[in-house]
Amino acid sequence: MKDTLLSKIKYPEDLRKLSADQLPVLAKELRDFVINIVATKEGHLGASLGVIELTIALHYIFDTPNDLLVWDVGHQAYPHKILTGRKNLFHTNRQLGGISGFPKRSESEYDTFGVGHSSTSVSATLGMAIASKLKGDTKKQHIAVIGDASIASGMAFEGLNHAGVTDANMLIILNDNSIGIDPSVGALKEYLTKAKVGYKPKTDNIIEALNFGYFGPIDGHDLPKLLETLEKLKSTKGPKLLHIITTKGKGLKQAEENQVAYHAPGKFDAATGDLLPKNDTQQPPKFQDVFGHTILELARENEKIIGITPAMPTGSSLKYMMEEMPDRAFDVGIAEQHAVTLAAGMATQGLIPFCTIYSTFLQRAYDQVIHDVALQNLPVIFCIDRAGLVGADGATHHGVFDIAYLNCIPNMILAAPINEIELRNLLYTASLGLEHPIAIRYPRGRGTIINWKTTFAKVQIGKGKCLTEEASEIAVISTGAIANNVINALETIDEKLSHYHFCFIKPLDSELLKKILQKYKTIITVEDGTIIGGFGSVITDFANKNELAPTIKILGIPDQFIHHGTTEELHEICGISAHKIRETIREIILPIESQS
Amino acid sequence: MKDTLLSKIKYPEDLRKLSADQLPVLAKELRDFVINIVATKEGHLGASLGVIELTIALHYIFDTPNDLLVWDVGHQAYPHKILTGRKNLFHTNRQLGGISGFPKRSESEYDTFGVGHSSTSVSATLGMAIASKLKGDTKKQHIAVIGDASIASGMAFEGLNHAGVTDANMLIILNDNSIGIDPSVGALKEYLTKAKVGYKPKTDNIIEALNFGYFGPIDGHDLPKLLETLEKLKSTKGPKLLHIITTKGKGLKQAEENQVAYHAPGKFDAATGDLLPKNDTQQPPKFQDVFGHTILELARENEKIIGITPAMPTGSSLKYMMEEMPDRAFDVGIAEQHAVTLAAGMATQGLIPFCTIYSTFLQRAYDQVIHDVALQNLPVIFCIDRAGLVGADGATHHGVFDIAYLNCIPNMILAAPINEIELRNLLYTASLGLEHPIAIRYPRGRGTIINWKTTFAKVQIGKGKCLTEEASEIAVISTGAIANNVINALETIDEKLSHYHFCFIKPLDSELLKKILQKYKTIITVEDGTIIGGFGSVITDFANKNELAPTIKILGIPDQFIHHGTTEELHEICGISAHKIRETIREIILPIESQS
Repeated sequence: MKDTLLSKIKYPEDLRKLSADQLPVLAKELRDFVINIVATKEGHLGASLGVIELTIALHYIFDTPNDLLVWDVGHQAYPHKILTGRKNLFHTNRQLGGISGFPKRSESEYDTFGVGHSSTSVSATLGMAIASKLKGDTKKQHIAVIGDASIASGMAFEGLNHAGVTDANMLIILNDNSIGIDPSVGALKEYLTKAKVGYKPKTDNIIEALNFGYFGPIDGHDLPKLLETLEKLKSTKGPKLLHIITTKGKGLKQAEENQVAYHAPGKFDAATGDLLPKNDTQQPPKFQDVFGHTILELARENEKIIGITPAMPTGSSLKYMMEEMPDRAFDVGIAEQHAVTLAAGMATQGLIPFCTIYSTFLQRAYDQVIHDVALQNLPVIFCIDRAGLVGADGATHHGVFDIAYLNCIPNMILAAPINEIELRNLLYTASLGLEHPIAIRYPRGRGTIINWKTTFAKVQIGKGKCLTEEASEIAVISTGAIANNVINALETIDEKLSHYHFCFIKPLDSELLKKILQKYKTIITVEDGTIIGGFGSVITDFANKNELAPTIKILGIPDQFIHHGTTEELHEICGISAHKIRETIREIILPIESQS
Repeated sequence: MKDTLLSKIKYPEDLRKLSADQLPVLAKELRDFVINIVATKEGHLGASLGVIELTIALHYIFDTPNDLLVWDVGHQAYPHKILTGRKNLFHTNRQLGGISGFPKRSESEYDTFGVGHSSTSVSATLGMAIASKLKGDTKKQHIAVIGDASIASGMAFEGLNHAGVTDANMLIILNDNSIGIDPSVGALKEYLTKAKVGYKPKTDNIIEALNFGYFGPIDGHDLPKLLETLEKLKSTKGPKLLHIITTKGKGLKQAEENQVAYHAPGKFDAATGDLLPKNDTQQPPKFQDVFGHTILELARENEKIIGITPAMPTGSSLKYMMEEMPDRAFDVGIAEQHAVTLAAGMATQGLIPFCTIYSTFLQRAYDQVIHDVALQNLPVIFCIDRAGLVGADGATHHGVFDIAYLNCIPNMILAAPINEIELRNLLYTASLGLEHPIAIRYPRGRGTIINWKTTFAKVQIGKGKCLTEEASEIAVISTGAIANNVINALETIDEKLSHYHFCFIKPLDSELLKKILQKYKTIITVEDGTIIGGFGSVITDFANKNELAPTIKILGIPDQFIHHGTTEELHEICGISAHKIRETIREIILPIESQS
């Protein structure tokens, strides 16, 4: 890196010392830098390659961090991080103790607003712009960079609708590359695509209808054009939007051509761009694929079955059904609220909608789950992917609140399968028609069973299971796939403990639970959700109500936000790795042994 | 009612026997019927008066209930209920055991989708329309009626954005009266207002940009025009929107002139329209007014204080601040998600935003509370009005989940004041600057203290209080204003019990709680939130963790949706009225006494 322009840049103030005609060279270096590190360290590639020129132009023209720059979602913020003091830390991206894969306020003053979920930037930037106005600061600039998939989400519309009746000094840069993680969908996307034709600005368009000044579309990889336009917009008053056209994955041929795969490609050859071969033959499947293949299998037999995903066809593996049955499997865009109520509407007409949403994103549709589904007791099937700790994506993406926020909702069945086969059978059971909505939560990543495509068997709703029964004073009760950490822990200690799996957090298997609480002196509960309001808490409430008082030790996510690292590292930190569960058991056994 | 047209109509099939020129007479009768009953029985008036003609026209032209009609929010559904089999029950509207004030699936097959919260109709109707298409039913019509305030919410935009790329046979009727509960706001509203000028349809408008056919605007009180237009639209394929202009409160002079007051006017003189005088001198204030007046008082002294409401300036009483400080108090429209993240953006710049939202509507912004506020530990102040059971609005509006869904969020302070003075002092304390976000929950209706405007005093975060300490074996711990039911209960029994008030559910007063759990044999906890995940559950978890095992009896909202009635009736049903608390105490005391 010696003698490069990039080597001389630590902060944007260094960038601003370059002449404008040096910037294309810098863009090349920055692009290579991102490619080289992400090739070996992994992370989100395509989005960042698409905004290399934009990032340089923004920090060149605007006076960051005094001027406030908000990146929507934040997948695209790697070049921003590299140019704002974190170049030498970039190789630690998404690793435990390293920098976050998303902008994060605690990491840098250049990260003005923490992101991870989409479509928050308009509201946040408007809040900042109003604050500046109230303080009498008329010079400060407020810039949001938002993609065409994110701007189509309801929350962004709410922000635009408000901003349009203010005189806030804010610039929205619509980074239009026609793709989020999967290709963008929806009427607004089609409209924007029309606006691109010939790169001619359109008058009286949908943006102007909302009282925004509309500029562009311009080529977002054309640095001189970007600089000139941004400079002009600096002195343009009021809310305004610059429409730029970019290519996701720009500058790496394979990433441009296969934008979905190169969103977060894993390891690849930096020189050729080729993905490194993955050794996943004879590995257990990802839970998402168990969902994706099973719903298709079920849908072939039952024409009432519908699949719905808000913008995660690849991540949820609904894509298999979308390919074979495009009329019955819907990607509705980043629109969790709509996804849930759409499913509710379908359920009123006797369809069987499977609505697959990541746990962390279901938070966006909480009211719809309560008000449109559960209150009407409509048998919508929520397939909650990425439940529990998700690893490198970190605090914004962990799916740890769902047990707490769903368990309090009347009518809701809440299930957490232990493995691929139980997930498969739950999907089958739900497809037969339930009298209530059901939420089935399962984790990111792979299960434990290679030959998981077994004959369907009906699961009895509300039944728990004894996995191992021993003549012990201690029993472990777990819910969900975290049971496998318990199994590993139990395999490596001499003492024999009983282990129960509660697939159903609600309805609870009262009969079995009562027996367990009567039989054992000490209970350890294990879950990968928040301890507050979680499964363990359900057990203590049950014990209290039934006036049973064994010692109950609750393992789960403590009352703090958990940052990024591998899932295994984070399990260790939260005390729910096999290793930590073993330690907890030992700590409990020791005093019992010394008494006897 | 003898000899009227209305007297002959039980169901829409009867309506369809009338000739078109009889319908204006029916409209007059229907309007009078609504006015006469709401005048004495109370309820939502203005919205229903505005859609008398539309309701008649819809049921006349369409084949309900085979054709599916969804009313957004549902305030306006009284004429619909009257024409669909519930005329003779209409006097029971919103009363315990009577019909619901909102469409409700369990009540009638004509109520195709339960509503209460806004902006769900587009998604629900699209779900129904897609279902019909998949079933091969090309005749069935699917109609959503949505107001101009509701269509500006993000969720409705998500629905439109999806519908626009389908060929679903759906008709959206935009009922544009420029007002929700308070006047509509936002850029879209301004745009629609322009579209009204001269009642001329505009081409290439924002609706057409989303691939909807756009029809209108037409006068929504002109029955012949409505009939003609709807008839034509029956055979118009694909997603389409009819823009109609109506007057909220139409036909009652005062209701037209004072639309906010006549949204739900309470009792009034049906002949003159005059509101009946309310005897509220020397009554304790409404909690919302304690908030509304106090924030203004604080804001006068501290220019960093900001008020934000999503479309509830009157209901939250933020209107006082909006009138005096329009630059610092914002009605952002029905946009809870935006409201919360706007507040977060402001907080990053050192402002002190008070975001006031009803408990039930905060469900709409759950992700924003977690992801944009709590994760970044921004000291946003959530003023959660209508927490607990809200009475006549019923299941869609009870604010009973907030303790469960907020308590699991790290960094969050969760408080429930006992009375006006504590609410006032909490607001003051929060305005001084906290290190965390805080959620302050308080109920609908009035408090207990007439002279509540006391000198501000700082509240110690996380401190509980002993209200009465007695040499009893039983103690009651309550949180929030429901404490007053406990106080009433304790005043009317002979036995003396101790009573503790925990203003803070989080952080918990561990020191005090430990003492209580050690001192008393039996604890009764009382709250007006769900038992699952609620305050009582926090206490049992604490007892379990600290290996303390008194008997704990938890009183709160059971695991079912609670319907409508007076708040007092619903407290009785849930076992948290003074009467029921007294009964519970007696049941606990009896066995103790018979032992001794």
